[in-house]
Amino acid sequence: MDREIEVPNPNNGQPCKSVTLEVLKGKMADFAKERDWDQFHSPRNLLLALVGEVGELSEIFQWKGEVPKGLPDWKEEDKLHLGEELSDVLLYLVRLADICGVDLGKAALRKVELNAIKYPVKQCDGYNTAEQDE
Amino acid sequence: MDREIEVPNPNNGQPCKSVTLEVLKGKMADFAKERDWDQFHSPRNLLLALVGEVGELSEIFQWKGEVPKGLPDWKEEDKLHLGEELSDVLLYLVRLADICGVDLGKAALRKVELNAIKYPVKQCDGYNTAEQDE
Amino acid sequence: MDREIEVPNPNNGQPCKSVTLEVLKGKMADFAKERDWDQFHSPRNLLLALVGEVGELSEIFQWKGEVPKGLPDWKEEDKLHLGEELSDVLLYLVRLADICGVDLGKAALRKVELNAIKYPVKQCDGYNTAEQDE
Amino acid sequence: MDREIEVPNPNNGQPCKSVTLEVLKGKMADFAKERDWDQFHSPRNLLLALVGEVGELSEIFQWKGEVPKGLPDWKEEDKLHLGEELSDVLLYLVRLADICGVDLGKAALRKVELNAIKYPVKQCDGYNTAEQDE
Repeated sequence: MDREIEVPNPNNGQPCKSVTLEVLKGKMADFAKERDWDQFHSPRNLLLALVGEVGELSEIFQWKGEVPKGLPDWKEEDKLHLGEELSDVLLYLVRLADICGVDLGKAALRKVELNAIKYPVKQCDGYNTAEQDE
Repeated sequence: MDREIEVPNPNNGQPCKSVTLEVLKGKMADFAKERDWDQFHSPRNLLLALVGEVGELSEIFQWKGEVPKGLPDWKEEDKLHLGEELSDVLLYLVRLADICGVDLGKAALRKVELNAIKYPVKQCDGYNTAEQDE
Repeated sequence: MDREIEVPNPNNGQPCKSVTLEVLKGKMADFAKERDWDQFHSPRNLLLALVGEVGELSEIFQWKGEVPKGLPDWKEEDKLHLGEELSDVLLYLVRLADICGVDLGKAALRKVELNAIKYPVKQCDGYNTAEQDE
Repeated sequence: MDREIEVPNPNNGQPCKSVTLEVLKGKMADFAKERDWDQFHSPRNLLLALVGEVGELSEIFQWKGEVPKGLPDWKEEDKLHLGEELSDVLLYLVRLADICGVDLGKAALRKVELNAIKYPVKQCDGYNTAEQDE
Protein backbone atom coordinates (compact mmCIF):
# COMPACT_ATOMS: atom_id res chain seq x y z
CA MET A 1 0.00 0.00 0.00
CA ASP A 2 1.46 3.30 -1.01
CA ARG A 3 1.83 5.51 2.04
CA GLU A 4 3.02 8.31 -0.22
CA ILE A 5 -0.55 8.84 -1.33
CA GLU A 6 -2.05 11.89 0.31
CA VAL A 7 -4.46 10.28 2.70
CA PRO A 8 -7.35 12.72 2.86
CA ASN A 9 -7.35 13.13 -0.86
CA PRO A 10 -6.44 10.04 -2.87
CA ASN A 11 -6.54 10.23 -6.65
CA ASN A 12 -5.56 13.92 -6.55
CA GLY A 13 -9.06 15.01 -5.70
CA GLN A 14 -10.56 13.69 -8.93
CA PRO A 15 -13.76 11.64 -8.64
CA CYS A 16 -12.67 8.04 -8.26
CA LYS A 17 -14.80 6.74 -11.09
CA SER A 18 -12.62 3.75 -11.65
CA VAL A 19 -12.82 2.16 -8.18
CA THR A 20 -13.95 -1.41 -8.71
CA LEU A 21 -15.18 -3.87 -6.11
CA GLU A 22 -12.34 -6.11 -7.29
CA VAL A 23 -9.76 -3.50 -6.33
CA LEU A 24 -11.28 -3.08 -2.87
CA LYS A 25 -11.41 -6.85 -2.43
CA GLY A 26 -7.71 -7.07 -3.22
CA LYS A 27 -6.83 -4.27 -0.84
CA MET A 28 -8.78 -5.89 2.00
CA ALA A 29 -7.17 -9.28 1.34
CA ASP A 30 -3.68 -7.78 1.32
CA PHE A 31 -4.46 -5.77 4.44
CA ALA A 32 -5.57 -8.84 6.38
CA LYS A 33 -2.71 -11.00 5.15
CA GLU A 34 -0.03 -8.45 6.07
CA ARG A 35 -1.38 -8.31 9.63
CA ASP A 36 -2.07 -12.01 10.04
CA TRP A 37 -5.76 -11.21 10.45
CA ASP A 38 -7.07 -13.90 8.10
CA GLN A 39 -7.57 -16.04 11.19
CA PHE A 40 -10.17 -13.59 12.48
CA HIS A 41 -11.98 -13.08 9.19
CA SER A 42 -14.56 -15.83 9.41
CA PRO A 43 -17.97 -15.18 7.83
CA ARG A 44 -19.84 -14.53 11.08
CA ASN A 45 -17.02 -12.48 12.61
CA LEU A 46 -17.09 -10.23 9.55
CA LEU A 47 -20.88 -10.07 9.59
CA LEU A 48 -20.92 -8.88 13.20
CA ALA A 49 -18.18 -6.37 12.39
CA LEU A 50 -20.37 -5.09 9.55
CA VAL A 51 -23.32 -4.77 11.95
CA GLY A 52 -21.05 -2.79 14.26
CA GLU A 53 -20.19 -0.38 11.47
CA VAL A 54 -23.84 -0.01 10.46
CA GLY A 55 -24.41 1.00 14.08
CA GLU A 56 -21.73 3.69 13.82
CA LEU A 57 -23.26 4.91 10.57
CA SER A 58 -26.67 5.12 12.27
CA GLU A 59 -25.23 7.10 15.17
CA ILE A 60 -24.30 9.86 12.73
CA PHE A 61 -27.95 10.32 11.80
CA GLN A 62 -29.64 9.37 15.08
CA TRP A 63 -30.53 12.72 16.69
CA LYS A 64 -30.84 14.77 13.55
CA GLY A 65 -34.43 14.25 12.47
CA GLU A 66 -34.91 14.19 8.72
CA VAL A 67 -31.94 15.54 6.75
CA PRO A 68 -32.15 16.87 3.18
CA LYS A 69 -30.41 15.28 0.21
CA GLY A 70 -26.85 16.45 -0.31
CA LEU A 71 -26.53 17.34 3.38
CA PRO A 72 -26.24 21.07 2.56
CA ASP A 73 -25.82 22.19 6.17
CA TRP A 74 -23.19 19.65 7.22
CA LYS A 75 -19.66 20.74 8.02
CA GLU A 76 -16.96 19.31 5.74
CA GLU A 77 -15.50 17.29 8.65
CA ASP A 78 -18.89 15.72 9.34
CA LYS A 79 -19.23 14.68 5.70
CA LEU A 80 -15.72 13.27 5.85
CA HIS A 81 -16.70 11.29 8.95
CA LEU A 82 -19.80 10.06 7.16
CA GLY A 83 -17.62 8.91 4.26
CA GLU A 84 -15.50 6.94 6.70
CA GLU A 85 -18.45 5.12 8.21
CA LEU A 86 -19.99 4.40 4.81
CA SER A 87 -16.59 3.02 3.78
CA ASP A 88 -16.27 0.83 6.85
CA VAL A 89 -19.58 -0.82 5.97
CA LEU A 90 -18.49 -1.20 2.34
CA LEU A 91 -15.09 -2.66 3.17
CA TYR A 92 -16.47 -5.29 5.55
CA LEU A 93 -19.19 -6.11 3.04
CA VAL A 94 -16.62 -6.62 0.27
CA ARG A 95 -14.49 -8.71 2.61
CA LEU A 96 -17.47 -10.80 3.77
CA ALA A 97 -18.46 -11.54 0.17
CA ASP A 98 -14.87 -12.53 -0.65
CA ILE A 99 -14.58 -14.84 2.35
CA CYS A 100 -17.90 -16.45 1.42
CA GLY A 101 -16.77 -16.98 -2.15
CA VAL A 102 -19.39 -14.64 -3.59
CA ASP A 103 -18.53 -12.49 -6.65
CA LEU A 104 -20.13 -9.32 -5.32
CA GLY A 105 -19.91 -7.33 -8.55
CA LYS A 106 -21.60 -10.10 -10.49
CA ALA A 107 -24.21 -10.58 -7.76
CA ALA A 108 -24.97 -6.84 -7.66
CA LEU A 109 -25.50 -6.58 -11.43
CA ARG A 110 -27.74 -9.64 -11.26
CA LYS A 111 -29.74 -8.16 -8.35
CA VAL A 112 -30.34 -4.92 -10.25
CA GLU A 113 -31.76 -7.03 -13.08
CA LEU A 114 -33.93 -9.02 -10.70
CA ASN A 115 -35.23 -5.79 -9.16
CA ALA A 116 -36.07 -4.48 -12.63
CA ILE A 117 -38.19 -7.58 -13.23
CA LYS A 118 -39.79 -7.35 -9.78
CA TYR A 119 -40.64 -3.67 -10.16
CA PRO A 120 -41.46 -2.99 -13.81
CA VAL A 121 -41.31 0.68 -14.72
CA LYS A 122 -44.87 0.99 -15.96
CA GLN A 123 -46.54 -0.52 -12.93
CA CYS A 124 -44.67 1.61 -10.45
CA ASP A 125 -46.73 4.66 -9.68
CA GLY A 126 -45.15 5.57 -6.42
CA TYR A 127 -47.92 4.09 -4.31
CA ASN A 128 -46.75 0.54 -4.00
CA THR A 129 -43.29 1.31 -2.74
CA ALA A 130 -44.10 0.02 0.70
CA GLU A 131 -43.45 -3.37 -0.81
CA GLN A 132 -40.19 -2.33 -2.39
CA ASP A 133 -37.62 -5.03 -1.92
CA GLU A 134 -39.24 -6.79 1.02
CA MET B 1 -31.21 -1.23 -18.28
CA ASP B 2 -30.61 -4.03 -20.74
CA ARG B 3 -33.20 -6.74 -20.21
CA GLU B 4 -31.43 -8.81 -22.86
CA ILE B 5 -28.77 -9.65 -20.32
CA GLU B 6 -29.26 -13.12 -18.96
CA VAL B 7 -30.36 -12.36 -15.45
CA PRO B 8 -28.87 -15.15 -13.38
CA ASN B 9 -25.60 -14.88 -15.18
CA PRO B 10 -24.67 -11.37 -16.29
CA ASN B 11 -21.35 -10.82 -18.01
CA ASN B 12 -21.51 -14.29 -19.55
CA GLY B 13 -20.38 -15.98 -16.38
CA GLN B 14 -17.02 -14.22 -16.34
CA PRO B 15 -15.89 -12.70 -13.05
CA CYS B 16 -17.14 -9.14 -13.09
CA LYS B 17 -13.79 -7.57 -12.35
CA SER B 18 -14.74 -4.32 -13.94
CA VAL B 19 -17.78 -3.46 -11.81
CA THR B 20 -17.16 0.00 -10.41
CA LEU B 21 -19.04 1.76 -7.64
CA GLU B 22 -19.72 4.48 -10.20
CA VAL B 23 -21.54 2.03 -12.45
CA LEU B 24 -23.71 0.79 -9.59
CA LYS B 25 -24.43 4.37 -8.55
CA GLY B 26 -25.63 5.15 -12.06
CA LYS B 27 -27.80 2.06 -12.23
CA MET B 28 -29.44 2.89 -8.90
CA ALA B 29 -30.04 6.50 -9.94
CA ASP B 30 -31.61 5.42 -13.24
CA PHE B 31 -33.68 2.79 -11.46
CA ALA B 32 -35.14 5.29 -9.00
CA LYS B 33 -35.74 7.96 -11.63
CA GLU B 34 -37.57 5.58 -13.97
CA ARG B 35 -39.95 4.61 -11.17
CA ASP B 36 -40.38 8.07 -9.66
CA TRP B 37 -38.80 6.81 -6.45
CA ASP B 38 -36.44 9.73 -5.92
CA GLN B 39 -39.06 11.18 -3.62
CA PHE B 40 -38.60 8.24 -1.25
CA HIS B 41 -34.83 8.17 -1.34
CA SER B 42 -34.02 10.53 1.50
CA PRO B 43 -30.89 9.83 3.55
CA ARG B 44 -32.66 8.38 6.57
CA ASN B 45 -35.16 6.38 4.51
CA LEU B 46 -32.25 4.75 2.68
CA LEU B 47 -30.36 4.19 5.91
CA LEU B 48 -33.31 2.34 7.44
CA ALA B 49 -33.73 0.34 4.23
CA LEU B 50 -30.05 -0.61 4.52
CA VAL B 51 -30.59 -1.71 8.13
CA GLY B 52 -33.49 -3.83 6.92
CA GLU B 53 -31.26 -5.54 4.39
CA VAL B 54 -28.52 -6.13 6.97
CA GLY B 55 -31.22 -7.85 8.99
CA GLU B 56 -32.05 -10.14 6.08
CA LEU B 57 -28.35 -10.88 5.60
CA SER B 58 -28.07 -11.77 9.28
CA GLU B 59 -31.06 -14.09 9.06
CA ILE B 60 -29.15 -16.23 6.58
CA PHE B 61 -26.46 -16.89 9.18
CA GLN B 62 -28.53 -16.78 12.37
CA TRP B 63 -29.11 -20.44 13.25
CA LYS B 64 -26.02 -21.89 11.64
CA GLY B 65 -23.36 -21.59 14.30
CA GLU B 66 -19.89 -20.89 12.94
CA VAL B 67 -19.55 -21.47 9.21
CA PRO B 68 -16.24 -22.14 7.42
CA LYS B 69 -14.75 -19.82 4.81
CA GLY B 70 -15.96 -20.46 1.27
CA LEU B 71 -19.19 -21.99 2.60
CA PRO B 72 -18.22 -25.45 1.25
CA ASP B 73 -21.40 -27.18 2.40
CA TRP B 74 -23.88 -24.63 1.13
CA LYS B 75 -26.22 -25.43 -1.73
CA GLU B 76 -25.80 -23.30 -4.84
CA GLU B 77 -29.23 -21.74 -4.35
CA ASP B 78 -28.30 -20.71 -0.82
CA LYS B 79 -25.13 -19.04 -2.05
CA LEU B 80 -27.17 -17.30 -4.72
CA HIS B 81 -29.56 -16.06 -2.03
CA LEU B 82 -26.60 -14.86 0.01
CA GLY B 83 -25.34 -12.96 -3.03
CA GLU B 84 -28.71 -11.27 -3.31
CA GLU B 85 -28.73 -10.11 0.28
CA LEU B 86 -25.13 -8.92 0.12
CA SER B 87 -26.09 -7.02 -3.03
CA ASP B 88 -29.13 -5.42 -1.42
CA VAL B 89 -26.89 -4.02 1.31
CA LEU B 90 -24.37 -2.83 -1.28
CA LEU B 91 -26.95 -1.19 -3.53
CA TYR B 92 -28.59 0.77 -0.71
CA LEU B 93 -25.15 1.75 0.58
CA VAL B 94 -24.13 3.05 -2.84
CA ARG B 95 -27.43 4.89 -3.15
CA LEU B 96 -27.16 6.38 0.35
CA ALA B 97 -23.66 7.67 -0.38
CA ASP B 98 -24.86 9.19 -3.66
CA ILE B 99 -27.84 10.91 -2.05
CA CYS B 100 -25.55 12.28 0.67
CA GLY B 101 -23.12 13.62 -1.91
CA VAL B 102 -20.29 11.32 -0.79
CA ASP B 103 -17.87 9.90 -3.38
CA LEU B 104 -17.87 6.38 -1.99
CA GLY B 105 -14.98 5.07 -4.09
CA LYS B 106 -12.78 7.95 -3.03
CA ALA B 107 -13.87 7.60 0.59
CA ALA B 108 -13.15 3.86 0.58
CA LEU B 109 -9.63 4.27 -0.79
CA ARG B 110 -8.99 6.97 1.79
CA LYS B 111 -10.31 4.75 4.60
CA VAL B 112 -8.01 1.91 3.60
CA GLU B 113 -5.10 4.33 3.86
CA LEU B 114 -6.30 5.58 7.26
CA ASN B 115 -6.61 2.00 8.48
CA ALA B 116 -3.05 1.28 7.32
CA ILE B 117 -1.83 4.18 9.43
CA LYS B 118 -3.96 3.13 12.41
CA TYR B 119 -2.81 -0.48 12.26
CA PRO B 120 0.82 -0.53 11.11
CA VAL B 121 1.90 -3.94 9.87
CA LYS B 122 4.77 -4.41 12.32
CA GLN B 123 2.81 -3.68 15.46
CA CYS B 124 -0.02 -6.03 14.61
CA ASP B 125 0.67 -9.34 16.20
CA GLY B 126 -2.85 -10.70 16.26
CA TYR B 127 -3.41 -9.91 19.91
CA ASN B 128 -4.67 -6.38 19.69
CA THR B 129 -7.40 -7.09 17.21
CA ALA B 130 -10.09 -6.45 19.75
CA GLU B 131 -9.43 -2.81 19.02
CA GLN B 132 -9.55 -3.30 15.27
CA ASP B 133 -11.44 -0.48 13.69
CA GLU B 134 -13.38 0.54 16.75
CA MET C 1 -48.14 -21.79 28.13
CA ASP C 2 -51.82 -21.17 28.48
CA ARG C 3 -53.44 -21.45 25.07
CA GLU C 4 -56.75 -20.49 26.63
CA ILE C 5 -55.59 -16.93 26.80
CA GLU C 6 -57.15 -14.82 24.09
CA VAL C 7 -54.20 -14.19 21.87
CA PRO C 8 -54.77 -10.69 20.54
CA ASN C 9 -55.70 -9.43 23.94
CA PRO C 10 -53.87 -11.00 26.86
CA ASN C 11 -54.58 -9.72 30.34
CA ASN C 12 -58.14 -8.89 29.38
CA GLY C 13 -57.14 -5.69 27.67
CA GLN C 14 -55.75 -4.12 30.81
CA PRO C 15 -52.36 -2.45 30.54
CA CYS C 16 -49.80 -5.12 31.40
CA LYS C 17 -48.06 -3.09 34.06
CA SER C 18 -46.81 -6.14 35.84
CA VAL C 19 -44.82 -7.73 33.00
CA THR C 20 -41.34 -8.31 34.35
CA LEU C 21 -38.20 -9.20 32.43
CA GLU C 22 -38.03 -12.26 34.66
CA VAL C 23 -41.42 -13.47 33.43
CA LEU C 24 -40.40 -13.03 29.80
CA LYS C 25 -37.11 -14.82 30.48
CA GLY C 26 -39.00 -17.76 31.90
CA LYS C 27 -41.43 -17.88 28.99
CA MET C 28 -38.58 -17.87 26.46
CA ALA C 29 -36.70 -20.60 28.36
CA ASP C 30 -39.81 -22.80 28.52
CA PHE C 31 -40.54 -22.15 24.86
CA ALA C 32 -37.09 -23.24 23.75
CA LYS C 33 -36.99 -26.25 26.03
CA GLU C 34 -40.39 -27.55 24.88
CA ARG C 35 -39.22 -27.42 21.25
CA ASP C 36 -35.68 -28.72 21.84
CA TRP C 37 -34.34 -25.39 20.59
CA ASP C 38 -31.79 -24.86 23.36
CA GLN C 39 -29.22 -26.36 21.01
CA PHE C 40 -29.70 -23.42 18.61
CA HIS C 41 -29.70 -20.72 21.26
CA SER C 42 -26.00 -19.92 21.42
CA PRO C 43 -25.02 -16.32 22.16
CA ARG C 44 -24.02 -15.40 18.59
CA ASN C 45 -26.97 -17.23 17.02
CA LEU C 46 -29.31 -15.22 19.22
CA LEU C 47 -27.44 -12.01 18.51
CA LEU C 48 -27.81 -12.48 14.75
CA ALA C 49 -31.48 -13.35 15.23
CA LEU C 50 -31.87 -10.09 17.16
CA VAL C 51 -30.18 -8.18 14.31
CA GLY C 52 -32.63 -9.82 11.94
CA GLU C 53 -35.56 -8.59 14.01
CA VAL C 54 -34.11 -5.07 14.23
CA GLY C 55 -34.05 -5.21 10.44
CA GLU C 56 -37.73 -6.09 10.33
CA LEU C 57 -38.49 -3.28 12.78
CA SER C 58 -36.58 -0.86 10.54
CA GLU C 59 -38.50 -1.97 7.47
CA ILE C 60 -41.70 -0.74 9.10
CA PHE C 61 -40.30 2.78 9.24
CA GLN C 62 -38.10 2.79 6.15
CA TRP C 63 -40.13 4.61 3.48
CA LYS C 64 -42.20 6.76 5.80
CA GLY C 65 -40.05 9.83 6.36
CA GLU C 66 -40.38 11.33 9.83
CA VAL C 67 -43.37 10.05 11.78
CA PRO C 68 -44.99 11.91 14.69
CA LYS C 69 -45.07 10.58 18.25
CA GLY C 70 -48.00 8.32 19.00
CA LEU C 71 -48.32 7.38 15.30
CA PRO C 72 -51.71 9.12 15.04
CA ASP C 73 -52.27 8.24 11.38
CA TRP C 74 -51.37 4.55 11.58
CA LYS C 75 -53.99 1.88 11.11
CA GLU C 76 -54.60 -0.37 14.10
CA GLU C 77 -53.23 -3.39 12.23
CA ASP C 78 -50.01 -1.51 11.48
CA LYS C 79 -49.58 -0.63 15.14
CA LEU C 80 -50.23 -4.26 16.01
CA HIS C 81 -47.54 -5.30 13.52
CA LEU C 82 -45.17 -2.76 15.05
CA GLY C 83 -45.85 -4.25 18.48
CA GLU C 84 -44.93 -7.66 17.12
CA GLU C 85 -41.61 -6.51 15.73
CA LEU C 86 -40.76 -4.56 18.89
CA SER C 87 -41.58 -7.72 20.83
CA ASP C 88 -39.40 -9.94 18.64
CA VAL C 89 -36.45 -7.69 19.41
CA LEU C 90 -37.30 -7.71 23.12
CA LEU C 91 -37.75 -11.46 23.34
CA TYR C 92 -34.43 -12.25 21.64
CA LEU C 93 -32.73 -9.62 23.79
CA VAL C 94 -34.12 -11.18 26.97
CA ARG C 95 -33.10 -14.63 25.75
CA LEU C 96 -29.59 -13.47 24.77
CA ALA C 97 -29.06 -11.94 28.21
CA ASP C 98 -30.27 -15.14 29.87
CA ILE C 99 -27.99 -17.36 27.78
CA CYS C 100 -25.05 -15.06 28.57
CA GLY C 101 -25.81 -15.19 32.28
CA VAL C 102 -26.60 -11.50 32.51
CA ASP C 103 -29.35 -10.30 34.89
CA LEU C 104 -30.93 -7.87 32.44
CA GLY C 105 -33.24 -6.17 34.93
CA LYS C 106 -30.36 -5.49 37.29
CA ALA C 107 -28.14 -4.33 34.41
CA ALA C 108 -30.83 -1.99 33.10
CA LEU C 109 -31.37 -0.31 36.48
CA ARG C 110 -27.62 0.07 36.84
CA LYS C 111 -27.32 1.58 33.34
CA VAL C 112 -30.01 4.15 34.09
CA GLU C 113 -27.98 5.16 37.13
CA LEU C 114 -24.78 5.34 35.09
CA ASN C 115 -26.53 7.49 32.49
CA ALA C 116 -27.75 9.83 35.21
CA ILE C 117 -24.16 10.31 36.33
CA LYS C 118 -22.92 10.74 32.77
CA TYR C 119 -25.61 13.26 31.87
CA PRO C 120 -26.33 15.35 34.98
CA VAL C 121 -29.62 17.21 34.75
CA LYS C 122 -28.21 20.71 35.22
CA GLN C 123 -25.57 20.46 32.52
CA CYS C 124 -27.94 19.16 29.90
CA ASP C 125 -29.25 22.08 27.93
CA GLY C 126 -30.33 20.21 24.89
CA TYR C 127 -27.31 21.21 22.85
CA ASN C 128 -24.89 18.50 23.79
CA THR C 129 -27.16 15.61 22.94
CA ALA C 130 -25.03 14.66 20.00
CA GLU C 131 -22.86 12.94 22.59
CA GLN C 132 -25.79 11.25 24.27
CA ASP C 133 -24.92 7.70 25.08
CA GLU C 134 -22.03 7.32 22.67
CA MET D 1 -33.93 8.75 40.52
CA ASP D 2 -32.27 7.70 43.72
CA ARG D 3 -28.58 8.53 43.49
CA GLU D 4 -28.08 6.92 46.90
CA ILE D 5 -28.35 3.54 45.26
CA GLU D 6 -24.96 1.93 44.86
CA VAL D 7 -24.52 2.16 41.12
CA PRO D 8 -22.67 -1.00 40.24
CA ASN D 9 -24.97 -3.06 42.38
CA PRO D 10 -28.56 -1.88 42.56
CA ASN D 11 -31.04 -3.86 44.60
CA ASN D 12 -28.29 -4.91 47.03
CA GLY D 13 -27.01 -7.59 44.72
CA GLN D 14 -30.24 -9.54 44.77
CA PRO D 15 -31.60 -10.73 41.42
CA CYS D 16 -33.91 -7.99 40.20
CA LYS D 17 -36.86 -10.25 39.63
CA SER D 18 -39.35 -7.47 39.97
CA VAL D 19 -38.09 -5.17 37.22
CA THR D 20 -41.07 -4.47 34.99
CA LEU D 21 -41.10 -2.90 31.54
CA GLU D 22 -43.44 -0.31 33.05
CA VAL D 23 -40.81 0.74 35.59
CA LEU D 24 -38.18 1.11 32.89
CA LYS D 25 -40.61 3.09 30.73
CA GLY D 26 -41.21 5.48 33.61
CA LYS D 27 -37.51 5.89 34.30
CA MET D 28 -36.77 6.66 30.66
CA ALA D 29 -39.62 9.16 30.47
CA ASP D 30 -38.45 10.94 33.62
CA PHE D 31 -34.87 10.91 32.37
CA ALA D 32 -35.78 12.56 29.08
CA LYS D 33 -38.11 15.09 30.68
CA GLU D 34 -35.55 16.19 33.28
CA ARG D 35 -33.02 16.88 30.50
CA ASP D 36 -35.44 18.42 28.01
CA TRP D 37 -34.68 15.56 25.62
CA ASP D 38 -38.28 14.82 24.66
CA GLN D 39 -37.73 17.01 21.62
CA PHE D 40 -35.14 14.53 20.33
CA HIS D 41 -37.11 11.39 21.09
CA SER D 42 -39.02 10.99 17.84
CA PRO D 43 -39.74 7.44 16.66
CA ARG D 44 -37.08 7.33 13.93
CA ASN D 45 -34.45 9.09 16.05
CA LEU D 46 -34.94 6.46 18.74
CA LEU D 47 -34.92 3.65 16.18
CA LEU D 48 -31.58 4.80 14.79
CA ALA D 49 -30.23 5.15 18.33
CA LEU D 50 -31.33 1.57 18.96
CA VAL D 51 -29.53 0.42 15.80
CA GLY D 52 -26.44 2.21 17.08
CA GLU D 53 -26.61 0.29 20.34
CA VAL D 54 -27.14 -3.02 18.54
CA GLY D 55 -23.93 -2.18 16.69
CA GLU D 56 -22.08 -1.70 19.97
CA LEU D 57 -23.49 -4.98 21.25
CA SER D 58 -22.27 -6.72 18.09
CA GLU D 59 -18.80 -5.26 18.47
CA ILE D 60 -18.45 -7.12 21.77
CA PHE D 61 -18.88 -10.42 19.96
CA GLN D 62 -17.36 -9.60 16.58
CA TRP D 63 -13.84 -11.10 16.72
CA LYS D 64 -14.55 -13.86 19.20
CA GLY D 65 -15.76 -16.74 17.04
CA GLU D 66 -18.41 -18.87 18.69
CA VAL D 67 -18.73 -18.33 22.45
CA PRO D 68 -20.21 -20.87 24.86
CA LYS D 69 -23.35 -20.26 26.90
CA GLY D 70 -22.76 -18.53 30.22
CA LEU D 71 -19.55 -16.93 28.87
CA PRO D 72 -17.42 -18.96 31.33
CA ASP D 73 -14.09 -17.45 30.22
CA TRP D 74 -15.11 -13.82 30.24
CA LYS D 75 -13.69 -11.41 32.76
CA GLU D 76 -16.20 -9.84 35.16
CA GLU D 77 -15.62 -6.39 33.65
CA ASP D 78 -16.39 -7.74 30.18
CA LYS D 79 -19.66 -9.23 31.37
CA LEU D 80 -20.47 -5.92 33.05
CA HIS D 81 -19.79 -4.15 29.75
CA LEU D 82 -22.03 -6.66 27.97
CA GLY D 83 -24.78 -5.93 30.49
CA GLU D 84 -24.45 -2.23 29.69
CA GLU D 85 -24.81 -2.73 25.95
CA LEU D 86 -27.74 -5.13 26.37
CA SER D 87 -29.33 -2.51 28.60
CA ASP D 88 -28.79 0.29 26.11
CA VAL D 89 -30.69 -1.71 23.50
CA LEU D 90 -33.44 -2.49 26.03
CA LEU D 91 -33.82 1.09 27.22
CA TYR D 92 -34.11 2.54 23.72
CA LEU D 93 -36.54 -0.24 22.80
CA VAL D 94 -38.73 0.53 25.80
CA ARG D 95 -38.57 4.23 25.00
CA LEU D 96 -39.36 3.67 21.31
CA ALA D 97 -42.42 1.58 22.21
CA ASP D 98 -43.58 4.26 24.63
CA ILE D 99 -43.18 7.07 22.10
CA CYS D 100 -45.08 5.00 19.53
CA GLY D 101 -47.89 4.36 21.98
CA VAL D 102 -47.28 0.60 22.08
CA ASP D 103 -47.82 -1.32 25.35
CA LEU D 104 -44.64 -3.38 25.07
CA GLY D 105 -45.44 -5.78 27.92
CA LYS D 106 -48.82 -6.58 26.45
CA ALA D 107 -47.36 -6.92 22.94
CA ALA D 108 -44.61 -9.25 24.17
CA LEU D 109 -47.05 -11.58 25.95
CA ARG D 110 -49.21 -11.62 22.83
CA LYS D 111 -46.19 -12.39 20.62
CA VAL D 112 -45.19 -15.33 22.79
CA GLU D 113 -48.71 -16.68 22.30
CA LEU D 114 -48.57 -16.12 18.55
CA ASN D 115 -45.21 -17.91 18.39
CA ALA D 116 -46.68 -20.85 20.30
CA ILE D 117 -49.39 -21.14 17.66
CA LYS D 118 -46.89 -20.74 14.80
CA TYR D 119 -44.52 -23.35 16.21
CA PRO D 120 -46.59 -26.04 17.93
CA VAL D 121 -44.57 -28.20 20.30
CA LYS D 122 -45.30 -31.53 18.63
CA GLN D 123 -44.34 -30.48 15.13
CA CYS D 124 -41.05 -28.99 16.15
CA ASP D 125 -38.36 -31.60 15.78
CA GLY D 126 -35.41 -29.32 15.49
CA TYR D 127 -35.20 -29.59 11.72
CA ASN D 128 -37.49 -26.81 10.70
CA THR D 129 -35.88 -24.13 12.81
CA ALA D 130 -34.51 -22.39 9.75
CA GLU D 131 -37.99 -20.97 9.45
CA GLN D 132 -38.15 -19.95 13.08
CA ASP D 133 -39.75 -16.56 13.35
CA GLU D 134 -39.06 -15.40 9.86
